[in-house]
Amino acid sequence: MNIIITGGAGFLGQRLARALLTQDQMQFSTLTLADVILPSAPLADPRVRCVQADLGSQAEVQALVGADTGLIYHLAAIVSSHAEADFDLGIQVNIEATRYLLEAARHQAPGCRFVFSSSLAVFGGELPELIQDNTAVCPQSSYGMEKAVCELMVNDYARKGFIDGRVLRLPTISVRPGKPNKAASSFASGIIREPLQGEATVCPVSPSLSMWLSSPATVIDNFIRAAQVPAEAFGASRTVNLPGITVTVAQMIESLRRVAGDEVCARISYQEDESISRIVASWPGRFNISRAQALGFVQDADFDAVIRSFIQHDLQGAQQ
Amino acid sequence: MNIIITGGAGFLGQRLARALLTQDQMQFSTLTLADVILPSAPLADPRVRCVQADLGSQAEVQALVGADTGLIYHLAAIVSSHAEADFDLGIQVNIEATRYLLEAARHQAPGCRFVFSSSLAVFGGELPELIQDNTAVCPQSSYGMEKAVCELMVNDYARKGFIDGRVLRLPTISVRPGKPNKAASSFASGIIREPLQGEATVCPVSPSLSMWLSSPATVIDNFIRAAQVPAEAFGASRTVNLPGITVTVAQMIESLRRVAGDEVCARISYQEDESISRIVASWPGRFNISRAQALGFVQDADFDAVIRSFIQHDLQGAQQ
Ligand SMILES: NC(=O)c1ccc[n+]([C@@H]2O[C@H](COP(=O)([O-])OP(=O)(O)OC[C@H]3O[C@@H](n4cnc5c(N)ncnc54)[C@H](O)[C@@H]3O)[C@@H](O)[C@H]2O)c1
Ligand SMILES: NC(=O)c1ccc[n+]([C@@H]2O[C@H](COP(=O)([O-])OP(=O)(O)OC[C@H]3O[C@@H](n4cnc5c(N)ncnc54)[C@H](O)[C@@H]3O)[C@@H](O)[C@H]2O)c1
Repeated sequence: MNIIITGGAGFLGQRLARALLTQDQMQFSTLTLADVILPSAPLADPRVRCVQADLGSQAEVQALVGADTGLIYHLAAIVSSHAEADFDLGIQVNIEATRYLLEAARHQAPGCRFVFSSSLAVFGGELPELIQDNTAVCPQSSYGMEKAVCELMVNDYARKGFIDGRVLRLPTISVRPGKPNKAASSFASGIIREPLQGEATVCPVSPSLSMWLSSPATVIDNFIRAAQVPAEAFGASRTVNLPGITVTVAQMIESLRRVAGDEVCARISYQEDESISRIVASWPGRFNISRAQALGFVQDADFDAVIRSFIQHDLQGAQQ
Repeated sequence: MNIIITGGAGFLGQRLARALLTQDQMQFSTLTLADVILPSAPLADPRVRCVQADLGSQAEVQALVGADTGLIYHLAAIVSSHAEADFDLGIQVNIEATRYLLEAARHQAPGCRFVFSSSLAVFGGELPELIQDNTAVCPQSSYGMEKAVCELMVNDYARKGFIDGRVLRLPTISVRPGKPNKAASSFASGIIREPLQGEATVCPVSPSLSMWLSSPATVIDNFIRAAQVPAEAFGASRTVNLPGITVTVAQMIESLRRVAGDEVCARISYQEDESISRIVASWPGRFNISRAQALGFVQDADFDAVIRSFIQHDLQGAQQ
């Protein structure tokens, strides 16, 4: 069995690859990392194959999928602020590439498992206090619209039996190591990561904003779980609101203060960015996760633990 | 100002054209009817232009839209059972053609009004008793999925200011004159129309099934209203669940009995069709329409009145 990770050079793609290579619940013979940037293997393992491919090209997508493909993790994407700034690129990568991949799976690896990474950014508009499984999406960004479109396609391809689809709506991920990116939520990692690295950082949203967060480690556990849930367990919808934890920006900074002290927190200043605020404030902060938990998906203990884990495993200079 | 109706040779396209030509709330200089089948003009009027165009071709779509296009009614579609049987054709016409049209409008007639005809078929799965504006879609047919995808695109194009979009989720239409079609809901007209024309008909669903219905005349009134609602009135979503009336199949037949008598009703026999039943039973039968009504959309009085109006205006031999 071959597993493909698209966006395999990306943050979650690299982490997921490492996790797949070091677990033993799922057997596979090759793990293909595909990305428009040539991925590197996260571990020296003979099963890893790295492929440079632009998924915006249907021919390159077709070349990727083979009869031995049993599981596809589709993570490649143009992230939120980038898709908002470049509408056409967002459509091409976030919708068209997904369609090419679904078609390739349908015809070249029929019935293969297909895990799609969606996002809480599908929600927006007038939201209830608590998001339920049957709360309507109402995206207020092109990224959210594109994810919502793909959710519908993955569900219908699954209903038709073309693939065995699973859609995970990811919370905002924090703490993400490395550099800021073009996600509107980039600050949700930056306000923790930069101060811990001795750098100043600007928080572009109100401290009272509620966020729905997951650590990268928990999201990766949930990606692995997603491939293992029996198809019948999903019922009429393959889409799952993944568990997260609800914290305000102020609470995130209080966690940082408890874990790392006042001096670190003093590196945070506030300057509202209208365009980031508008996108992020349209996302919900609280979900009913009983269905996700019944399907075996997990959640972080609390945000203090998330920061401690980041310091231990991901901070520059930390031992992996 | 030019108005375009796609699917202009179709049932609703022809009715809408006639209604636009005979009203005087909206002024326009040309009315273009475009369809893969060359439409005919419903009335002799110098403003009508009939164009044969396959909207599955991007070039043909581009040729349709001009700088003078102020309003597009996008009605062309592959209907439900047909899209379920021919998945690729459904995607091409119900999604790709819509995308071509949105792109043409964005670049060639920026800001133009764009009324998209969606359907209650976007709903399915576990449904609440009463569908609310924020009830999640969960299509159980490819047609429903395709409509839901287009709803999202029209909303995002509107949010970006590329077009001024409006999405109407139509109830099942009854009574539709003429011949049966490939819509899964075709029987909802057939069980009234055929007996009234002296023909036998088979009802393929359970008499206890609740339907959400609108007469063609009311839908046409609502199409005209859709172009007139001020953009600001929509709030975060351009999508509206149009008003309908809730009747069971048994109640529809009771209406027929009251209006046309026992002899007419005796022409109906029952034989469940599993595939039609499955699709139609996945659609909801009851909606909260307060938002739609606040936006000025209207509903039929009751199903007896719908049948009487059909007999008066549409029955073979009736005076138009
Ligand atoms: N990190 C988060 O907070 C978060 C939250 C919700 C959802 N997600 C989703 O999870 C997935 C992974 O996120 P991430 O944080 O690893 O993002 P990332 O930006 O680090 O990775 C995305 C990868 O996609 C690749 N890519 C872009 N265009 C491509 C193309 N045309 N062909 C092939 N590859 C292309 C990029 O090169 C990049 O390596 C994405 O789908 C993202 O939308 C992430
Ligand atoms: N009638 C209903 O009960 C109902 C209910 C809900 C929604 N709708 C929607 O309302 C719209 C109109 O419905 P209708 O009842 O008039 O359907 P219809 O089938 O009579 O008309 C659709 C028209 O689209 C045209 N068409 C198909 N493929 C095309 C292509 N590639 N290029 C150009 N034209 C093409 C057909 O030739 C046809 O004339 C459709 O979008 C339908 O999905 C109808």
